[in-house]
This record gives sequence, C-alpha cells and structure tokens, in this order.
Amino acid sequence: MKVLSYGEVNLRFTPPDYQLLAQTNQLTYQITGTGVNLLTNLSNFGMETTLLTTLPDNNVGKMAAANIRKYGIQDHHIQFNGNHMGSYFVELGYGVRPTVVTYQNRLASAFCQANPASYPIEEAVKENDIIHICGISLLLNERTRETALKLAACANEFGKPLYFDFNYRPSLNTEHSKAFIKEQYEKILSLAHTVFGGIRDLTELLDIEVNEELPYLEQLQMGIATFKQKYHVKNYVGTNRGFENHEHSLAGFMDGESFKVSSTMPVDLLDRIGAGDAYAAGIIFGLANNWPEERILEFAVSNAVLAHTITGDVPHTTLEEVEALMEGRQQSLIR
Amino acid sequence: MKVLSYGEVNLRFTPPDYQLLAQTNQLTYQITGTGVNLLTNLSNFGMETTLLTTLPDNNVGKMAAANIRKYGIQDHHIQFNGNHMGSYFVELGYGVRPTVVTYQNRLASAFCQANPASYPIEEAVKENDIIHICGISLLLNERTRETALKLAACANEFGKPLYFDFNYRPSLNTEHSKAFIKEQYEKILSLAHTVFGGIRDLTELLDIEVNEELPYLEQLQMGIATFKQKYHVKNYVGTNRGFENHEHSLAGFMDGESFKVSSTMPVDLLDRIGAGDAYAAGIIFGLANNWPEERILEFAVSNAVLAHTITGDVPHTTLEEVEALMEGRQQSLIR
Amino acid sequence: MKVLSYGEVNLRFTPPDYQLLAQTNQLTYQITGTGVNLLTNLSNFGMETTLLTTLPDNNVGKMAAANIRKYGIQDHHIQFNGNHMGSYFVELGYGVRPTVVTYQNRLASAFCQANPASYPIEEAVKENDIIHICGISLLLNERTRETALKLAACANEFGKPLYFDFNYRPSLNTEHSKAFIKEQYEKILSLAHTVFGGIRDLTELLDIEVNEELPYLEQLQMGIATFKQKYHVKNYVGTNRGFENHEHSLAGFMDGESFKVSSTMPVDLLDRIGAGDAYAAGIIFGLANNWPEERILEFAVSNAVLAHTITGDVPHTTLEEVEALMEGRQQSLIR
Amino acid sequence: MKVLSYGEVNLRFTPPDYQLLAQTNQLTYQITGTGVNLLTNLSNFGMETTLLTTLPDNNVGKMAAANIRKYGIQDHHIQFNGNHMGSYFVELGYGVRPTVVTYQNRLASAFCQANPASYPIEEAVKENDIIHICGISLLLNERTRETALKLAACANEFGKPLYFDFNYRPSLNTEHSKAFIKEQYEKILSLAHTVFGGIRDLTELLDIEVNEELPYLEQLQMGIATFKQKYHVKNYVGTNRGFENHEHSLAGFMDGESFKVSSTMPVDLLDRIGAGDAYAAGIIFGLANNWPEERILEFAVSNAVLAHTITGDVPHTTLEEVEALMEGRQQSLIR
Amino acid sequence: MKVLSYGEVNLRFTPPDYQLLAQTNQLTYQITGTGVNLLTNLSNFGMETTLLTTLPDNNVGKMAAANIRKYGIQDHHIQFNGNHMGSYFVELGYGVRPTVVTYQNRLASAFCQANPASYPIEEAVKENDIIHICGISLLLNERTRETALKLAACANEFGKPLYFDFNYRPSLNTEHSKAFIKEQYEKILSLAHTVFGGIRDLTELLDIEVNEELPYLEQLQMGIATFKQKYHVKNYVGTNRGFENHEHSLAGFMDGESFKVSSTMPVDLLDRIGAGDAYAAGIIFGLANNWPEERILEFAVSNAVLAHTITGDVPHTTLEEVEALMEGRQQSLIR
Amino acid sequence: MKVLSYGEVNLRFTPPDYQLLAQTNQLTYQITGTGVNLLTNLSNFGMETTLLTTLPDNNVGKMAAANIRKYGIQDHHIQFNGNHMGSYFVELGYGVRPTVVTYQNRLASAFCQANPASYPIEEAVKENDIIHICGISLLLNERTRETALKLAACANEFGKPLYFDFNYRPSLNTEHSKAFIKEQYEKILSLAHTVFGGIRDLTELLDIEVNEELPYLEQLQMGIATFKQKYHVKNYVGTNRGFENHEHSLAGFMDGESFKVSSTMPVDLLDRIGAGDAYAAGIIFGLANNWPEERILEFAVSNAVLAHTITGDVPHTTLEEVEALMEGRQQSLIR
Repeated sequence: MKVLSYGEVNLRFTPPDYQLLAQTNQLTYQITGTGVNLLTNLSNFGMETTLLTTLPDNNVGKMAAANIRKYGIQDHHIQFNGNHMGSYFVELGYGVRPTVVTYQNRLASAFCQANPASYPIEEAVKENDIIHICGISLLLNERTRETALKLAACANEFGKPLYFDFNYRPSLNTEHSKAFIKEQYEKILSLAHTVFGGIRDLTELLDIEVNEELPYLEQLQMGIATFKQKYHVKNYVGTNRGFENHEHSLAGFMDGESFKVSSTMPVDLLDRIGAGDAYAAGIIFGLANNWPEERILEFAVSNAVLAHTITGDVPHTTLEEVEALMEGRQQSLIR
Repeated sequence: MKVLSYGEVNLRFTPPDYQLLAQTNQLTYQITGTGVNLLTNLSNFGMETTLLTTLPDNNVGKMAAANIRKYGIQDHHIQFNGNHMGSYFVELGYGVRPTVVTYQNRLASAFCQANPASYPIEEAVKENDIIHICGISLLLNERTRETALKLAACANEFGKPLYFDFNYRPSLNTEHSKAFIKEQYEKILSLAHTVFGGIRDLTELLDIEVNEELPYLEQLQMGIATFKQKYHVKNYVGTNRGFENHEHSLAGFMDGESFKVSSTMPVDLLDRIGAGDAYAAGIIFGLANNWPEERILEFAVSNAVLAHTITGDVPHTTLEEVEALMEGRQQSLIR
Repeated sequence: MKVLSYGEVNLRFTPPDYQLLAQTNQLTYQITGTGVNLLTNLSNFGMETTLLTTLPDNNVGKMAAANIRKYGIQDHHIQFNGNHMGSYFVELGYGVRPTVVTYQNRLASAFCQANPASYPIEEAVKENDIIHICGISLLLNERTRETALKLAACANEFGKPLYFDFNYRPSLNTEHSKAFIKEQYEKILSLAHTVFGGIRDLTELLDIEVNEELPYLEQLQMGIATFKQKYHVKNYVGTNRGFENHEHSLAGFMDGESFKVSSTMPVDLLDRIGAGDAYAAGIIFGLANNWPEERILEFAVSNAVLAHTITGDVPHTTLEEVEALMEGRQQSLIR
Repeated sequence: MKVLSYGEVNLRFTPPDYQLLAQTNQLTYQITGTGVNLLTNLSNFGMETTLLTTLPDNNVGKMAAANIRKYGIQDHHIQFNGNHMGSYFVELGYGVRPTVVTYQNRLASAFCQANPASYPIEEAVKENDIIHICGISLLLNERTRETALKLAACANEFGKPLYFDFNYRPSLNTEHSKAFIKEQYEKILSLAHTVFGGIRDLTELLDIEVNEELPYLEQLQMGIATFKQKYHVKNYVGTNRGFENHEHSLAGFMDGESFKVSSTMPVDLLDRIGAGDAYAAGIIFGLANNWPEERILEFAVSNAVLAHTITGDVPHTTLEEVEALMEGRQQSLIR
Repeated sequence: MKVLSYGEVNLRFTPPDYQLLAQTNQLTYQITGTGVNLLTNLSNFGMETTLLTTLPDNNVGKMAAANIRKYGIQDHHIQFNGNHMGSYFVELGYGVRPTVVTYQNRLASAFCQANPASYPIEEAVKENDIIHICGISLLLNERTRETALKLAACANEFGKPLYFDFNYRPSLNTEHSKAFIKEQYEKILSLAHTVFGGIRDLTELLDIEVNEELPYLEQLQMGIATFKQKYHVKNYVGTNRGFENHEHSLAGFMDGESFKVSSTMPVDLLDRIGAGDAYAAGIIFGLANNWPEERILEFAVSNAVLAHTITGDVPHTTLEEVEALMEGRQQSLIR
Repeated sequence: MKVLSYGEVNLRFTPPDYQLLAQTNQLTYQITGTGVNLLTNLSNFGMETTLLTTLPDNNVGKMAAANIRKYGIQDHHIQFNGNHMGSYFVELGYGVRPTVVTYQNRLASAFCQANPASYPIEEAVKENDIIHICGISLLLNERTRETALKLAACANEFGKPLYFDFNYRPSLNTEHSKAFIKEQYEKILSLAHTVFGGIRDLTELLDIEVNEELPYLEQLQMGIATFKQKYHVKNYVGTNRGFENHEHSLAGFMDGESFKVSSTMPVDLLDRIGAGDAYAAGIIFGLANNWPEERILEFAVSNAVLAHTITGDVPHTTLEEVEALMEGRQQSLIR
C-alpha cells in the first residue's frame, strides 16, 4: 500500500536537557510536520510513502529533503522554490511544567508561497493508494487551500480514500471569518473517507449541537452521529487525554461501523508533541490492513503512547514494538 | 517596586545527563547565589532588581556580571576586585540517588575579601524599596558580617523593609562558637521585617524551646510565636518537605497576621536546588502586592514547585506559569 | 559618551565543528545584527550603549533581550510586538571552502512590522551623544525606512552626529527600482556625519563615476572626493580585503581631514562574519576620543582583524587586546 | 581482600538524551563488561581488584586500559594482542519504551582470540583472595572456555573461593548443542563457592525439575535445593524483578545457610543495564565481610537499586550511599 | 546517467575537537565507505546512484540505510543480513600530528559474510549506466571476491563501463600469497574501462618494471604505458601528494588519450580522509559528461581539495563549489 | 626507571570551539599540573611514574585521582585531605588572538594546606630512581616549601638525581621579598642534578649578570656558565620561542657536557599550554636512556612541538610519534 501526504515541512528547534531558551545557546533541530510524522511512521510499518510539499531552494531545503529521505519517505514529488521554512522552538516541559512551543512566521514559507499549479497532483494521486491531507493547509492561505481542495477532488476522481486531519487551530486564521473557514472545511469533509478530529472541531467549527449535560463520551458519540449523517464520512477517529493523580493517560475512539473506545493507557511524557500523528498513522495502517476496529484502536493508541516516549515530533516506532505494548508483552530491556 | 539584595555570587558546575564527575569531562556552568536566584525570579515577575556584591576583577567576574544582566538584574552596584569566585559541583541525583553538592573554597572569594567600606550602602538603600540579605553573610567572615549589619541598619534608618533569610549552615562556621554566631543573627533579626527559616533555625541556633511531643506543625507554630515575641519580626515564613510512597511533596507556612499553612503539592524533581529561593521570591512578591496571606502562600509554594522542574538553581518562572499552576489550570503543552 | 543604534536583531544558527547542515542536527545560536555587534563592541570599550529595535513578544524575543543585556547593551528602548525574528544559518568555511550564509524570511519580522510611531525617537536621541543607523533598514520596507529617516532627522535636529552604514545589498530590494532605493539613501546621506561604505556603494548605487583605469586606491579616493562634495559628509570610511599566496589580509581607509590608508594586516579566519561591524566600532570609538586619524585607522583595522579570530558575528574584543595588537605587543599566551 | 575477575571488556555506545540511533550522529562510549562492572564497584567499596583479560594492541585497547585504571582496577594482568573489541549500542528506553541493545561481533575480539596459555593464571590466583568468572566465557569459544576452566581449577587448587555468574544466554551459543554447553557449565559449577543465577538457569540449562504449580518462590527454593545437592555449591544467589501499576521493583534471594528473600524495593530506571553486576558485587562484598545473610541481601539489593539510577553499565556506588539507602536514611540533596 | 557501486559500508567514530580517544568519552559517527563516499558525491552532482551492499539486519543496519538515503543514494539493492558492521576510529591530526585510524574487525561484517548469490547482479547492472567496484572487495574474502568478479563480468556482458579502484592494502591480505591477490586483480583489470591507482599498485602488486632513476612523473608515465598495453584499460588515473615548507599540496594525473597532469593545488587539511574518493567521483563525472581531459583533471583535483576541507570521509561538495574553485572564483563568504 | 614528582594538581576549565567565557555555558575540564603533565608523558614513553601530592577528600579529589590513574600514574602516594583544588579557566586563542588563562585561588587548596609531615617522603624516594620538583612549590607557602626542601634533601641522601623546574612566576609571590624567594631557590638548586629554566630565571631571580650587548644565545651561554659554576648543577636546559612572518617556532638548548642548541622547528598551535612540560619530559627520558645530548635535544623539542598540537595541557605523545617527527618521517595519515 502506498500513501501520499500533502503537508508543510517545519524546522523544530529544541534546547537540550529540558533547558529553557534563556538558559542555553545550544539547540538540536528536527525536520517535522504532520505529513512528515505520519509518513515516517507508516514507512517504519512497511508502507511506501511519498510527501507532496514545497521546500526552500537553498541549503536549508536540501537538508530538509535529505532528512525526509532518511525517514524513509520518497522525495520525488518535493518542489524546490523560495527561501523560507516555517520553524518553531520547543522548550520541553518536565512534570507540572508545560512544554512551550513558540512559532516563527510560516506564511512566508516556500510551502505557503507555492503555486498550486506547480504540483503534479494527478500523477501523485495515481501513483498512490491512500491520500492524506492535514487541515492546517485550509487555514494558511489561498494557495494552500486551493492545493488541498484540488488534491481532495482528484483523490475522489480516482477513487483513492482521503484521510483528513482537522488540526483546526483558530489562532492560525487571522484573515477570514470563522464562517469562511467552516465553508472550506465542509468542502473537503464531503470528500473524505476518514476524518481525524475531536469534539470541539464538531461543536466549535462545524456548529454541531450536543447535549452538554450528558457525560463526555455520550456527547462525543452524539456529535459524531450528526457529523457522519451530514458529511457521509466513513470513519471519525480521535483521542481523549486524561490527567489524574499526577498521571497522564490516553485513550482513542473510533466511529466506523459503530462507536468504540479503546482501553485507557498510562502515558510517560518524554516529548509531548507528535502523538496525535502517531495515532493517525496507527489508524491508517489498521484500516489499510482491514483489521477489526477493536484491534485498530488498541494499535493506534499503543502507538501514540510509545510516541510520547520518543524525543521529537517524529514517531519512530516499529510494528514489533507497538504490538508488544498492545499485547502487554513489552519488556524493560531487549538484548 | 525595587528590590536590592546583598549576597555572594557563585559558579555552579554540573555534569550533563545525570552523570557523576567520575564519568565525564564535560560541565555546564551557571551563575547562582541566593541573591541572584531571588532577584532573577523577581525580575521575571516584573520588579526592578539590583545586586550588591563583589566579583573578581577578571574574565570570570566579567562573565558573571554579563550573566547577571542577562537574568534581568541591574549590575551598577557590583564591585570588581580580587580574583576568586566560590564554586561548587552538582552531581544531579535521580530517583533514590541524592543530588551531591561539593563546595570549593569560598572564603578566598572576591565577595568574602571585599572591604565593607567599598559598598555604596546608603545610595543603594535609598534607590530601592525592599532590602534582602542572605544569612550566609553572617557565617562567612568579619567583612561580610560587617557589610550585612551595616546594610540592615541602613535599611531600618531609611524605613525600607528588611527580608532576611536564615540559611544557617553550621558547617560553614569553623572559626567561632555557636554563641558568637547566634549573637550576630540576633543583631540582624531585630531589624528584620520578614524572616525565612525553619524550625531548626529557631530551636538549634536561637535555643527557642518547643514541646517535642506535640505534632510537628504545633511545635512549629509554638516556636514561631516565641520567636516573634522576642524579635518583633512581622512575618516568619518557610517550607515543609514530605516524602512518602516514593513521592516528594512541598508545603509552605507563614506566620504574619496568623499562622497559616498552604496546600501540599506533589513535586517533580528535575533539579533539587533553588526551590527555597523561589519560595522566598514568591513571598516577597506577594507581600509587595499586598495579597491576602492565603494567596501569598499558594503562590510561593507553586513557584517553588515549578522551580524544581527547571534545570539549575535559578528559578526562571513567570507570573503566568505560577498562577496557572496555583489555579489548577496548568497544561501539558502550550502552543 | 552614549551611543544609540537602530537596527534589526537576528538569530544566527551555526552547526558545530565546521560541519554542514547536511551533516548534523546540532546548532549553536547567537543573537546578532549590525547594531548589536557594534554596540557590544563599544560597550566592551567602555561606552554606554542602547539599542532601538523591536523584538517578538514571546519567549524568543525575551531570550534575545536577555542576550542583548548580557552583551552590555541597555534594553529600555526595545519594543516587544509580533512573533517573528529574522534568522540565518551559517555553515562555517575552512580554507578554500567558503562560509555559506542561508537567510530565512526577515520581512515578516517584528522589526520589519513595527510601526514607526511606536518608537520613542526623540527621547532616545536626547539621551545619547551618537546615533547609528544600519542601511539595511532603507532596503527592508516602508516602515523601517520611515523609522530610519525620522531618526536621522531627529539626530540632526538635536545636533547629534549620525553614523550611517551603507550595507547596500541589492538582493534585499525586490520591490522597488534601484532609483527609488538610491533616493532613500540620498535622503539619509545628506544628514550623516560619518558614512561606512566601499567603492561599489558609490559607483553602483549612487552612480558616482570614477576612472576605472586608475589603480584601485586612486579610484576610491576619486569617488570619495565626489561623494563628500555632493553629500557634505564629514568622513567616509571602509575596508579593503586582500587574498594572495593562500593568505587573507585586511586594510582600512578613511577620508576625513584627508584620504588615508592603514597598514595591511594578515588575517586569521576563524569566523568570516562581523569584522565590518568591528571596524565601524573602532572608527566610532576613535572619533569619539578625538584620536588622530592615523591612530583611528590602525585601531579599527586591528579590531577587525581580532574580530575574525572570534567565533560568531559579535566582536567581543577589549581595548587592551586591540591596543596590544595595534602596537605589535600581542602575545601567544596571557596568564 | 583482593579480587580477581576474568572477563571480556566491551565498548558500549549510547546516543544522548534518550535518542534512537536513527535520530542522532552522536554517542558517548563507556568501557564495560561483567568483570569491569563488578570490580569497579568493589574498588569503590575499598577492595583491591585486578582484571584478567586481553585487549587489542592499538589505541582502542590503550584507551580501554586507561579507563579500567580510572575505575580503580589494577591493569597489570591485562594482555595486549589482536585488534578488535566487542561492542554494542544501547538505545535507552523511557517509560514503556524498552532499552534496546544491539551487539556487534564479539567472537573476533582480542579477548576471544587470546591463547589460554598467554595468561599468568597461577600468579594471578596466588595474588588474590577471591576469584570471579563470568559464564559468558563458557559460551564464546574453545579458547575462552579453556581459560575459564583452567582458572577455576587453579582457584580450587590454591583454596581461593570461586564466584561464578551463570549469565547463560542461549543466543550466544550458535555452534554447539545445549548438552555440550551444559557439560561445560557443570565442570565449573562443581568448582564454585557461590553461584549467581535465576530459576531458568536451573530448569532450562541444567534440566533441574520443579513443580510448576507451586508459587514462584517455592519453585525457586525447590530448584536451588536440588542444585546445591548436586553441585555442592555453598551459595546460590539472584534477583527477582517485578512490574506492577506502572512501577518497577527489585528483590534479591540467597540460599546459603538457608533460603532467604530481601525486601522488595521500588526501582527508578535511569539505565536498565548493570544492576545485576551491582547485585553480585554487593553479595561478594557482604560475604567477604562475613555479614549476616539478611544484611548481605539488603545491601546487595540496595546497591542494585542505586545502580539503576546511574548512567551506564558501571555501578559507581559507594559504601555510604548504599548503606544510607539500605537503612532508609537516603536524602534528596547532600551538601 | 545512473551509477552503481558495490562496496562495504563502514561506521566511522570520531572524537570531537581534535581530541584523542584517551581524552574523551564522546564520539560522532558517520556512515562511510568508498562506494558511499563516491555515490554521495555523484548524487550531489546530479547523478542517480545506487549502492549494492549488505547491511546488518538490526537497528545499526537500519540506521546505516537511513543515512545512505539521506546522502541521496538509492537503497533498493541493499540486502539485510547478519549483525556486524566494520568500524574504525579516527583521531584527527592537527599540523604535524598525523590523523590516526584504528580499524575494528571487518571480516565478520554482514558485507563480508554475504552470499554472492544473494545480490540481484544482473538486474542492478541493467538498471545502471556505469559500474564501480572498490578493490578492497578483492582482498577481503572469497565471498566478496566472487561478488566483485561476477559483477565485473556482468558489466562487460551488458556493455556498461567498469570503473575499478585499486585500493590495494597489503595489510588486509593475511590469508593468501601476493601472487594469489595479483591474480584476482588481473581478472578484474582486464574487464575495466577506467582504473584508479598509483605507481606502487603497478610496481608492487602487478610487478611492472620502471626505471627508478627517472624523475617520478616519467616513471609513472612509463609504468602506466606498460599497464595499458597489458590490460587494455582505457584510462588510468590517480593523484600525487606533496608536502613542502610546512604546506600540503595535491595534483592529479590521467592517462586516457595521453598522459596529463593537473595543476598542483595547495591543500587545507580539516579532514585527511576521503579526498581520494572525491577525486574518483570527479573523474567519473567528467568522463560521463565527455569533458576534455584537461577539464576533467582540474575538476577532479579541485573536488579532492575541497573534500579535505569537509569534516568526515564523505565529500559533500556541489558542482557550483567545485567549479568556482577550479576557475579561481572561490569566495571567502557567500551570502 | 621509576620517576617520582612532587607537584600540585589543578583543574583546567576550557570553553569549547575557541569560544570565550562570555559566549557559552559549557566547559570541558582536565586534570593538570606540571607533575601530572610530565609523568603522563613519561608513562606514555614506558617509565613507571608516581605522583606525590594532596587532593581534596571529596568527590572532586576522587575524580582527580581517577584521572591521574587513567594517565598511567601510580596513585598510592596521593594524600586526601581538605576540600579545595586550584583551578583556572583557559580561553583558547586563535591566530593573533592570545590564549587567556584566568586563575582561581590556589593557596586554599588541599595541596597548599597539606602538612609536610603527612607525606611518606623517604619511602617515596627509595621506591624511585629519579625525583622531580616543580619550582612553584617554592613560591606558594611555607608548607609546600618545606615539603619541597625535605624531598630534595632526601633525594640527595639516597643518591637519586633531582630534576628541578624553575617555573618562577613573580606574580605568585605576594608575601615575601624577592630576596627571600631567591634564598629558597638557592637551597634547592644546590641539590639539583638538572635544572629547567630560561635566561630571566638566571638574571632576574638569581641576579646573574650577562653582557646584554651580546647576541641572545651568547648571553644565555654566558649566564648558564656562571650558574653552573655557582650551583654545581650538571645540566641546565630550556627552550627558545620564535615568531616571525606570522609563524611560531621552537628550539631547545642544553648545557650538560657543553652548550648545545637544537634545530628550530615550526609550531602548529592547537593548544598553547603544556609544551614546556613535554620538553622537560623529553629531556628526562633522554638522560635516563643515556642518549647523546644532540639526540636528547632533538627528541625533547620534537616532543614539545607535538604537544602543541594536542588539546589540553597534558602531552599525550608516544615514543613512536616523537621519533617519527624527529626523524622527518611523520605522515599526514596513519592507517
């Protein structure tokens, strides 16, 4: 199975040893992005993956492409143009101290400035079996929106299932009304096979109503039911996070054939970013393998739990590790 | 509000990645000291701060002053003289393994050798609203004692509240009898507005008697009552540490209008040094803002808890972060 | 003497150990910028310095301000707004391999987006004795141009000498005609006391004609004579670089009372960026001290030569070191 | 008391900051090996220790010997020959993510290629009071087996107690039948004073039968009883690991005068390798000091628990630290 | 043009900052090998490249493949098997202190243990236009020899030019007579289109006689003439190194249409390994582009000179950089 | 041959990558000292070496002893007492920028505070063949002076040759008159077999007169002649440093049987400290081997030249490397 993802590539800068920016002049950097994270993970699981994006036409862009290849992702559909790449700093939290992410400008990036016509969309869709789009492209600007919508339409035309990740961040939309953004999302949702999201995406962006007096899971189930009826999406999937007694936990939900919730797993937080992309990768892999929904959910949530124990956004988990955790066979030391 | 602190500046050397000195030839260093820690924290909270100290007149002293400015502290009352700065090595503990601090000689330091007459005490007191003195200056030698006492007297003369931190470490006093040291402390205590200390400072140094059969908190309350009666100090504040079920916790106490105890908070120990100074900074900031004592206590203990999650002695917390923790609004990830 | 500089603050990222971006995921970063470099150097020489700029209103901006204070520069005229800071990557060259600088977007920076009205220009000019402006502000956008021109006019109004650095980089001007840019430069040149530039600034930007058949130094002298006549600038200063027999060298020139050239000094290239700012700092310091022009030139070029032996853009040289080199008293080892 | 150990020296490569090999090009390395680990620990406890091994006759071997001396181990019985040292990569786990060890070839190592006749076995045995052999030498090849057996025989001849560590890893035996390996172990077991092992060593390698329906500890006790009867070994000692409620724990057992089990201690896992060697060192030290078995067990398990909080395989614990933990006097911070 | 290379992949470990192994416990590692170096360089020049090799089937092998992809080399003909990769330590020299390379065992490597039948030789040859073989494969063992000879024969069969690099190191041949090795080389030389070597390969391995009283270049020319006559190879190319007046230099020679020597270029030695592979890459690229021999030589030697200024074995040069150096247009700083 | 040295052990802190203290918060540290440097080098040459010193009785002292063992020096005569070790910061120079050393207090060190009676002087002298004393012990305080003089007297008593290194630094003597210091030196000089020094030690400390109008080498020869006559020392040895045409050079001199000067060698300065100790080690080794004086000189100066290419004070050179350089056989790359 071959997967194509359209998404922005970012530079993540992280000070070492849980230090704050104010404490050090050293950084490690990592090439990230929703598409990068997801495809790296799927490559590790054995799928063939390709990224559709635009990188700066300079040493920074070349370095990014080199890292993308290192992750096991095909780079033949990467365009090189412009000179900027969106970046962010991550000051890693510890215990009760939160991880703090500080974004630098991304609208000036090669990705945001790329002409939709510059992408070989039809060729890329034909070469692949599964198409993935990150919702942030709907928020950034006209060019990324147009590219996302063209890609989604093309996926439908050639009968390739479209996986769409809400990733709705109101703060990224500074130019338009919420109504405008909702309209863009609706265009793509009606073309999607599987959607990754939470309850607030349904209630706050799409204005779906739920009975707020019900327990959380019932609200969620109710909101999804309305959503699926309206947009004819096959699967709606996402995660719930818990924090109790000074301990974090994670569970996944999925509404495909029916609404299901995974077991709740305790979480060890080495790095607090990227687990959502790992969860999505688990779902895509499970659906592509036609696993039962129960297994898909347990696999995806185990994968996300492992992703939290790996430094950086990119979930470098393997099939064996995820299955060992899922089946309670994980060890402390493997020789 | 402007705060002046008189205290020694130290060099802290820390091996990376929880390594022991025996395991590596690499170190990070940090400029620290009770005054430095406290003023950095108050600068982060928005106060104007100034350090009164002496640094070596060489590249090490210049580097220390540069770091002090970086922390947001005014350096115009730093004197440059001599060639030595006290230093210590910190081998960071992990779990049940304790953090081990190894001190190098500090009596030869520029700070300890500085002539009391070299400091512009009156000018410095006049420029500021709050004066802070660390008790270690009473232990070191005649010069630092004389400076501390002159500064305390001057603060009283100009009606500036004096915050005094016991920091009584018997091991630092190798020349004099305990009676001599007690006498020095008593001179300054009678001039203080607020004192930071624990129960042993009262019982072991000041020979205040408590009924040891009472529960700990009642002993403490009883000791403070005697103390306040004797020295006419407005506030006596400090912390209690707990360790149970393999978990550390922290609570603060304060006897101002009345004896109060904060809630007990679980502690994540990234770095085990500097939380006491963060607690003191929280108290000073709260009192300067005339907050209710309950709020002051919760703020100060939340600040100390956060300080334990930050590498190094210096508590780089911000008002927003402390308030979020205090109000139970802390997040795992802030974008 | 107090010096004010208006200029952009940048983030420089440098891979360690002469590595390329393709070879490592580690970086050190440094806060730089023409104004930052120059003021740091003048602070080291004992002058009081202040930066007029805008930094992002987030942890990156706070970290930048902290580093600026560490450099010994006053931060009370730094504005905080926006969320982006211009950055560039430096892959350090070695021998015949050139140092390669890759810029990220700077037009979206807090500095470029700052409203000219947000700066306390009159107050800042009044507080200082010398005003410095980097020519890049004339190239960036309308806002930075307006700020630079207001500041220049205000300097003239209050009789403070204006030092202006051409720094003309055609590649930064993508919106306007060369004629437009020339016009902007001419506005500010007519207000300047001392201008830093080369021969191409005169011939290519200002269209001053020189006899290209003359030896280089005569062309330069001729061009400057025309320039000074036209714009009534007191001093025109700059550097000449040489490369012969596999060795680099540097010399300075100055046309104040008369056209003079410094001795030519061999250059050891540890870091190839920032020597121009060191040269300018040397000139400003010499002129402020009313040294003879010969001494000013030797001092400035010695300072620039030393700057090339220091990692990073920022010239951390001291008066003693520069004078030792200038007077041929430099040592291999100082204990 | 003087201890001699015969064992292989290895190079351990560890990526920093819990990173995977795929994520970094940086490593720290450490000189390790069962003998190295155990002797370092015993040196820290005050014993005189000597390693009997062969290192490559090149800069890698010299570096290894230098580190062995640094650990406090005598190097006068190290032979230098050949050019290879066995090595392994350790990707440190975090939380539920296991530590992964990847071995490189060790059969080509100087140790494995060393001629048994090249070792001064009799001299080494005479100089020492206690002889230790790691069972891996029985698995590697004919040369290491012959050396181990000669050393064991010689220890018996001169009446020096032999401590033998099973360390049976079926994966290392690729050439021979299990029966052959069992035969080799039996030769050495009959010469041993104290044996370190678990239940599987008894049941899987030695084919000792236990009633699998009994609780684990009763099976263990039963297996050991049979073992001691058959091989006339004085002590059989080992550890049990627990994992419950997301927490790891450790307990030790010892069957000397009678079968005893230590208290179960919670474990903080900074580094998951080397605790077994720390446990063995604790046992050897306790027996050498003729402590009561209860004390020996508590000491050894406390030592192993501390070893888990130290980076790397080598247990750099001290007597004071272990006793403080054993007696519940451990502190969070030692100044 | 597509290039295939058959060669071993190695792990290079380098202590930082010119330190010796005895001085640090830190290393950077790099994936190298003659084939890897050459193909990375050709990828940078824009060619499509593929490596034919065997890597260990574990995390080390996966990491190596990831780095090979990062270099821009196709990994679809990499086999995974075994568990060992040959490695070496590089202690970087400085000035008169030589760089010291210490090899670990390579005969146990996955590459050396690979079955010749496991490689898809015909398929790989057909897919590519140019075939490259490193002579070390003739020295290692029967399996690598057989693979090299099969590949050479297949290249001839399908009319693909074979580039062969002598790389004759007597020390690697410990099993066989020189006559045996000579015989192996002769088999492959008769199939080669272009051979990389020096004068000693001709005289010492192939027993070609030259008049030792002639100047060096005439001896070389004479030896090559005999060689070409005997083995019908189209081109014989190599380098000459000079060291005079405390300065290193490099020149290339080539005997294709006629014997030619490049200009002699001064060399800056940041890293002393890998320039030979850069020279070979330059020759292959020039011949593939049908450049005149003079240009090919200047290009190849410029490439090798640049390679010496890059950390590590792998020559990350680009076409633009090499041409700038070759044409004397190199700059000190590129913005 | 066995060598004993009495001398202080120091901590050297070095910022990485030629950075200044103002630029980084990272350091590497190294255990150094004249005795440590010299003995490490002699151990590398194959001699048995022992250090007589006092280290702090804490983790810093233990770490120092561990490093001393790592260097190959016997630690059985190291005393542990006190809590301080003298330290200094080294900001590495580059090209014309000098290396700057900043000392911290050393008078408070365990070494300076050690009681002369605490050293097993007679035992240590008897065990060894050669005794070495660093002159700094004559400058520090009464205790180190007394120890040095006792050791020197004992060496004479048992007929062991005494090597004495002037190392006269006027800045270290702040308590006494020059006359007092001269008197101390004279006591020890009359007991010495070989003295390391320069011309200023003779003229400035010992008030030996030379004709300053003679060329330098004749002055030196004349001064030494007077010195040897007066103090009956067998050998007087030292170095001359040159700097011309932007290049450093080194030559050695020796007056034993007659006055001789070595060839002048160009110097590559990676680290500017420690070459004097390497020179002394070369002389001691050559004399111990009864080499001709010409060979001793060339060996010692080659060793010092190599020491300048090694990071840190400690000269990790080997016999083979020094001889290769001395004989002009040095290579650029050793495989």
